[in-house]
Amino acid sequence: MPETENSRKPHDRMAAYLADDLAAVNTLIRSRMASEHAPRIPEVTAHLVEAGGKRLRPMLTLAAAHLCGYQGHFHINLAATVEFIHTATLLHDDVVDESGQRRGRPTANLLWDNKSSVLVGDYLFARSFQLMVETGSLRVLDILSNASATIAEGEVLQLTASQDLATTESIYMQVVRGKTAALFAAATEVGGVIAGAPETQVRALSDFGDALGISFQIVDDLLDFQGDPGAIGKNVGDDFRERKLTMPLIKAIARADAEERAFWVRTIEKGRQQDGDLDHALALLTKHDALGDTSRVARSEAARAKQALAPLPNHPVKEMLLDLADYVVERIS
Amino acid sequence: MPETENSRKPHDRMAAYLADDLAAVNTLIRSRMASEHAPRIPEVTAHLVEAGGKRLRPMLTLAAAHLCGYQGHFHINLAATVEFIHTATLLHDDVVDESGQRRGRPTANLLWDNKSSVLVGDYLFARSFQLMVETGSLRVLDILSNASATIAEGEVLQLTASQDLATTESIYMQVVRGKTAALFAAATEVGGVIAGAPETQVRALSDFGDALGISFQIVDDLLDFQGDPGAIGKNVGDDFRERKLTMPLIKAIARADAEERAFWVRTIEKGRQQDGDLDHALALLTKHDALGDTSRVARSEAARAKQALAPLPNHPVKEMLLDLADYVVERIS
Repeated sequence: MPETENSRKPHDRMAAYLADDLAAVNTLIRSRMASEHAPRIPEVTAHLVEAGGKRLRPMLTLAAAHLCGYQGHFHINLAATVEFIHTATLLHDDVVDESGQRRGRPTANLLWDNKSSVLVGDYLFARSFQLMVETGSLRVLDILSNASATIAEGEVLQLTASQDLATTESIYMQVVRGKTAALFAAATEVGGVIAGAPETQVRALSDFGDALGISFQIVDDLLDFQGDPGAIGKNVGDDFRERKLTMPLIKAIARADAEERAFWVRTIEKGRQQDGDLDHALALLTKHDALGDTSRVARSEAARAKQALAPLPNHPVKEMLLDLADYVVERIS
Repeated sequence: MPETENSRKPHDRMAAYLADDLAAVNTLIRSRMASEHAPRIPEVTAHLVEAGGKRLRPMLTLAAAHLCGYQGHFHINLAATVEFIHTATLLHDDVVDESGQRRGRPTANLLWDNKSSVLVGDYLFARSFQLMVETGSLRVLDILSNASATIAEGEVLQLTASQDLATTESIYMQVVRGKTAALFAAATEVGGVIAGAPETQVRALSDFGDALGISFQIVDDLLDFQGDPGAIGKNVGDDFRERKLTMPLIKAIARADAEERAFWVRTIEKGRQQDGDLDHALALLTKHDALGDTSRVARSEAARAKQALAPLPNHPVKEMLLDLADYVVERIS
């Protein structure tokens, strides 16, 4: 069946629409990840930046700027900024998670070492601030430095909340904000700010990014329990094995009877897992409809994202953003 | 003998002169290292920030602002910024160096874990940018984001240059800029910038910080080979054992005959060290006057720092900065 315009994923349609901008972003990224003195830096960065990431976050910035009628070129800087912050976060995440794979390839900390991942992440973070300074917008710097603090705070929170059965949905949501929503929201917001859009539109873009990011992360956590391993690029139950308390588990634990609670204490809190535990965990998630309830939260966030865009004018990019919100939850089986 | 005003170290006299400002900096640091959601953050930060560091870098910012007649309060923000960047760097350094001790206490990565050190460092780095944004000065953001990039680049360079006998003095100087001089120079420069000082004075302050930082780091590397273990807080020869190519070693290796070169290849490049190697290394450093030559470079940088201050007006703080440059090289035995 030939691929028609409408059958393509919203992400791909957006990439086609923004192709010239994305090419400029890639050129800028390549020039700024260079280092006069330390060739290790572009090696490590290229491994990640060129690995075929979807460039979703920089695309959100470009899309928001277009939607607000921006005619300048600083949205390219900001899109590269957002991608650098994201890449720096991934490099540090892989050290923190002791991961061996990312996007189906060995992680930088495995190919080089943890040291390189930490320091190259720091370099990209500094470079991202240089890119922002060039735009001359203190408001952009304010938004993205706040997002960076929320990201780091969320990661620390995830570290301490992990394996702790007392983790509430409210703590989980704060972790999700740090992991995903803060950068999504900042990415769309700065697109509006650089375009000089009215406050209602800037606020709308920030809300859209926030809700989209939350929905995106919840679906990710849901697919960890019910996804097709080929499609999600990791194994079903990884979060369970790593004892990460995501929304499905938090809901099932909240509804556990004494016997079930003992199971969660053993497998998550004490980490004494054995054969068959994942199947039993999945059965408990089904019994308490934890996956169904989680997917309802994801859908409601996607709906909130779409509603948020109301103050924005009609525009092909607006349709793509609306479709993107739908697509995020369509991944739920 | 009672301590007189002039017998006190220049650093202590500066701390006394700037006492009110330093108290304000400490209050600001404590309020900004808090985290609403993640109590781990202030725990880790307090361990380092309250550990009795000398606050040398923030004092340089305060001193520069005073010297340029600044009457506002943003120098407090900038001094806290500089301390946060420094603390973030230390947290990441300890992960990279796999250190167990810093300032005579166990490092954060040992007390908590590498993950916490990486993420809390990221948090402090983000917080430092928030503090800068509040000053409303894009130029300050430019200077400190450039310094942050140089710091990270220097650290990566040190990683790849370590154990590599081909490391030149020029590479070493670039590492020193990243490790120490870039933040010293930025710390003094932003003090002048926030005061609205004339360009010649801003440039002079930057040059002073640069030369002071280089001198400071070279003396540090020198004391690793000839210091009093009690005074330097580490053991003689640590850099040799860790196969770090600092200026004394680079000079001795450049002057090595074939037999000596084989010794350096075995001990530094291959890392096959045995009893007596440190003594032999020290003998080779003496034979080639590598320590004497290194101390001459340190003294010439200290002299450059003092000369740089010529365009600044007479002021008690200027005398303290001049004395500080002298004091840095007085530590050489």
